Amino acid sequence: MSKNIMIRFPDGNMKGFDKGVTLETIASSISISLKKKAVAGKVNGMLYDLRRKIEEDAEIELILNDSEEGIEIMRHTAAHVLAQAVRRIYGDIQLGVGPVIENGFYYDMDLSDAVSNDDLPRIQKEMKKIVAENFQIERLEVSRQEAEEIFQHDSLKLELLESLPDGEIISLYKQGEFLDLCRGPHVPSTGFLKTFSLTKVSGAYWRGDSNNKVLQRVYGVAFASQKQLDDHFLFMEEAAKRNHRKLGSELELFMFSEEAPGMPFYLPKGQLIRNQLEFFLRSIQQQHYQEVRTPFMMNQRLWENSGHWDHYKDNMYFSKVDHAEFALKPMNCPGHMLIYKNKLHSYRDLPIRISEFGQVHRHEFSGALNGLLRVRSFCQDDAHIFVTPEQIESEMKSIVQLIDEVYGILGFEYSVALSTRPEKAMGDLNLWNRAEVALTNVLEQLDMPYELNEGDGAFYGPKIDFYIKDALNRSHQCATIQLDFQMPEKFDLYYVDANNEKQRPVVIHRAILGSIDRFFGILIEHFAGAFPTWLAPVQVMIIPVSHEVHSDYAQQLEEKFRQQHVRVEVDIRNEKLGYKIREAGLQKIPYILIVGDEEMNNNSVNIRKRGEQKTEVQVVEDFLQSLQNEIENKVL
Amino acid sequence: MSKNIMIRFPDGNMKGFDKGVTLETIASSISISLKKKAVAGKVNGMLYDLRRKIEEDAEIELILNDSEEGIEIMRHTAAHVLAQAVRRIYGDIQLGVGPVIENGFYYDMDLSDAVSNDDLPRIQKEMKKIVAENFQIERLEVSRQEAEEIFQHDSLKLELLESLPDGEIISLYKQGEFLDLCRGPHVPSTGFLKTFSLTKVSGAYWRGDSNNKVLQRVYGVAFASQKQLDDHFLFMEEAAKRNHRKLGSELELFMFSEEAPGMPFYLPKGQLIRNQLEFFLRSIQQQHYQEVRTPFMMNQRLWENSGHWDHYKDNMYFSKVDHAEFALKPMNCPGHMLIYKNKLHSYRDLPIRISEFGQVHRHEFSGALNGLLRVRSFCQDDAHIFVTPEQIESEMKSIVQLIDEVYGILGFEYSVALSTRPEKAMGDLNLWNRAEVALTNVLEQLDMPYELNEGDGAFYGPKIDFYIKDALNRSHQCATIQLDFQMPEKFDLYYVDANNEKQRPVVIHRAILGSIDRFFGILIEHFAGAFPTWLAPVQVMIIPVSHEVHSDYAQQLEEKFRQQHVRVEVDIRNEKLGYKIREAGLQKIPYILIVGDEEMNNNSVNIRKRGEQKTEVQVVEDFLQSLQNEIENKVL
Repeated sequence: MSKNIMIRFPDGNMKGFDKGVTLETIASSISISLKKKAVAGKVNGMLYDLRRKIEEDAEIELILNDSEEGIEIMRHTAAHVLAQAVRRIYGDIQLGVGPVIENGFYYDMDLSDAVSNDDLPRIQKEMKKIVAENFQIERLEVSRQEAEEIFQHDSLKLELLESLPDGEIISLYKQGEFLDLCRGPHVPSTGFLKTFSLTKVSGAYWRGDSNNKVLQRVYGVAFASQKQLDDHFLFMEEAAKRNHRKLGSELELFMFSEEAPGMPFYLPKGQLIRNQLEFFLRSIQQQHYQEVRTPFMMNQRLWENSGHWDHYKDNMYFSKVDHAEFALKPMNCPGHMLIYKNKLHSYRDLPIRISEFGQVHRHEFSGALNGLLRVRSFCQDDAHIFVTPEQIESEMKSIVQLIDEVYGILGFEYSVALSTRPEKAMGDLNLWNRAEVALTNVLEQLDMPYELNEGDGAFYGPKIDFYIKDALNRSHQCATIQLDFQMPEKFDLYYVDANNEKQRPVVIHRAILGSIDRFFGILIEHFAGAFPTWLAPVQVMIIPVSHEVHSDYAQQLEEKFRQQHVRVEVDIRNEKLGYKIREAGLQKIPYILIVGDEEMNNNSVNIRKRGEQKTEVQVVEDFLQSLQNEIENKVL
Repeated sequence: MSKNIMIRFPDGNMKGFDKGVTLETIASSISISLKKKAVAGKVNGMLYDLRRKIEEDAEIELILNDSEEGIEIMRHTAAHVLAQAVRRIYGDIQLGVGPVIENGFYYDMDLSDAVSNDDLPRIQKEMKKIVAENFQIERLEVSRQEAEEIFQHDSLKLELLESLPDGEIISLYKQGEFLDLCRGPHVPSTGFLKTFSLTKVSGAYWRGDSNNKVLQRVYGVAFASQKQLDDHFLFMEEAAKRNHRKLGSELELFMFSEEAPGMPFYLPKGQLIRNQLEFFLRSIQQQHYQEVRTPFMMNQRLWENSGHWDHYKDNMYFSKVDHAEFALKPMNCPGHMLIYKNKLHSYRDLPIRISEFGQVHRHEFSGALNGLLRVRSFCQDDAHIFVTPEQIESEMKSIVQLIDEVYGILGFEYSVALSTRPEKAMGDLNLWNRAEVALTNVLEQLDMPYELNEGDGAFYGPKIDFYIKDALNRSHQCATIQLDFQMPEKFDLYYVDANNEKQRPVVIHRAILGSIDRFFGILIEHFAGAFPTWLAPVQVMIIPVSHEVHSDYAQQLEEKFRQQHVRVEVDIRNEKLGYKIREAGLQKIPYILIVGDEEMNNNSVNIRKRGEQKTEVQVVEDFLQSLQNEIENKVL
């Protein structure tokens, strides 16, 4: 027995094995537990089944069942098990594709009898049986002709076969009686599948083309452990509770109409929060930024000049004005460039910081719309800053600090990514290098960890993106700071330097919340509608114990609070106390004040703070004082 | 001599005169002074020259030289004198038309040598000569054939003759050697013309048609007295100084671009004032109104349903969205109707008051655009109030009071007009009557004088319009309150009444400033750019006496003021003190604080209040306190 191939491990160690050895054998040779955990591997960078033979010297890497790649392979096998179970139940039905998706898998199947969600337990039971049967999963490589013969009665598979390019290896996977066309890899046997669950059925056009027939798509999720699966369902439940569209309607924050898809209507309570966000941003930037307001549409030639026409016209809306084509602004930049150009600027005037709460319109496919998270019209907290090249670093630092301040107050953790010069970059290389050094300096001086995305910057300049993390640990790209070396060229912007010579400024685009509308959607989900007091549409609800006896006192308090600019309501309806408290609770009002005889006699209130079980009695002035502090300091 | 016709005077008295008597004779018969003041009259309601013969019994009325009608007749005569003077100087040139316009007159003339403004003194001198010659002005009535013969060499007059309908009396007026085709009347002789002045020359297409040749149009003004003429020139001078486009550019409030005609760009200082107006309105209405925000464009079918398509489509802008035609909103009503419809309403919820700072787009011809006063996109301080018919009166009263409060704070006097049911009214007659009574009651209860425009309401309901009077006594229609009985029908709006039955609400449209943009334009002219402190973009300018010695103190003050939310700037440039003061004065900053040794030592400031000669020294804290009071109380 000659050990005639060399296997190199990720740690660099090398070991000889027989030609034709499998990853499973190699894992066994290291430890039993490793063999148990391995579901597949990589051979010279290519995904390999655990039992596929290795015929030559190779670098290998094992994929374990609890790694992200391992879980994905299991999800793929789960799709095959699903299809096998459906065939057992519904007979020889046609199968489409069965890919892995986030958290799980689906399989598209042509079931003449539509499957409903009610049928899922039965299918899942059959899947468990297949898992228990623990079929070996074998890879077969066949010729195209052989494959066509095997799938001669499966028209969908034949179509898939046809679309495979000539020369591609055609592989099949077999588990028990079930055979499928598949690139692999898969776990070694169906018994490896432990924790999965079918979730829903929906219709889907074959190959996503609405001219084709509708197949049934059965969805499932699969994880490495029961804990992960449970966590997933908890997360889904929590996310559903926090869904901003649901809360938006329950809390009467916004609505949509089929008369304007993707264009939100803010109801009074939602508009109040939007306004608070706007006031907050305005107050925080007012000392250093100059707010402007620019037209909502402008002549197409301007957008041609700015380059938006070339890069963005499919997402723009147009309108005829005076026989000319105008475009609704998808961005505020060109308007701000015209404002800069309206006046001569000396180097002494720079940086010039122009901000706008600018309402932009950008087309999205109707299928892509998603509440406030993906809309067609939104308001940006936009700014353009005109600087000399020397000012890039200090200005970037101020902006990063400003963003940090805003996210800190709103209670968001965030991560940062720096994107540098792409291959197709335009503009002076020296300027690029200088700017990239400046951005790196800023992040390092501020001791801010960041991801470096080399070559991922825009063609017109490098950028820093900010990703906030919400209460469910989801990441959302919001703030962005982009340097722009091109826009000043296109608009022929200049300032006069100390030698009285014309120089090009650099433009910095920046947004903090990004889209106020989308950010509002994120905030709703982050806070699950329970906004911090400074943002809450109603901050205090006063409820008299007895409708008859205590309403006057309740209304006096209301008036007192209102005069102190507290957003207060009083509920003097002739309803039960418990009912009123429950209703105010559903509205997620931060403070419910119950007032009865004792409170009336002591000039006090009985406070139920949102989310707390115990109540507390306080003298009115004390409560009001602490409430005002909370609001003023934007306590979370 | 038989006294064979009866003349009836305006006071009802009657008197007999000879047939063929003239108004001049009748005036003489009353008093010499009346004869001197009379320039023409009315006979049975028809305008008559003073010396035209009266052939039958008649009611007469004299027109005096200082009445509006009298002045207009003089202006018409002035146009003839102008033409006569030009003929004397430039020879037998062709004459077009010479009508009366506001404050004066013009005459269109075909002068092969273009006349320039430099030639006006010479023409005016010749006019004075014609006045001094005091020609009798005679009316001649001729046949069409005679007229054609007289004007055979005057092609323009022949064209005018042609356009006179058959059967029309053709009258000519003759003064000295000058004869013109004219309907009259005129003053009795050129000597009646006292105070006139030529103002400018411009080109004008013959009959306003750009296919015709360009004539020279000479403009003049004429008044009853030298004082009126002087006042007019003072007014023009003042209006030019206050021109909002001029001030808008000088004070850097806003700009326009040919990339978006009629759509203002607000520069930082202008946007600041706009924001102040918005904050002010929001604060004043926040307790009773619920602010919303609705999409900027919506599906065309919505506008068809609302009726805007039928009545307004030529003024709307359209855009394609998802293959459907969308319209940029020209009004906010339909969006607010959709919000009302989003929820079931009980009679207990009414009135529901929905407000929006709504940006609308309305097309205007490019020739009609006029700075901020006539734009294509503007922001309305709009609201729609949904009421039961019983609530109309009390709600209208609150709105009128709200408008009164806002105008009071802004320092505007205003007048009111009530417009009632037009002939083509729609909706229930009872409702109309009830509403009209309610509106009348409101105005009378509030002791508010009003003009009644019977039949001038919209077809959908009666309305009250508000006209503010600016510093130059010009009137601007701004606020409006309109009842609407139709919109609730069109959108099938209802509320549930106490008997659990569906009832139609009435909608009240109302705006206080109307268009914030236009109102801002009016404010600029009203205040001549010298905004009250609460509105001023920069409220305080601090100037150190010595750049080297006092800059620190100036900057400390700046910081102190800024912390108290005062909009303050400090001028520490190395320039002369006088220069800096002059510059701050040109910016119309309310307070200029000069700080030198004495101020530094005494913690004081030397105050130059805008518009005042004397300066005053105050301790910093005292000044700050009174400044804050002034701002908070919006002192004018």
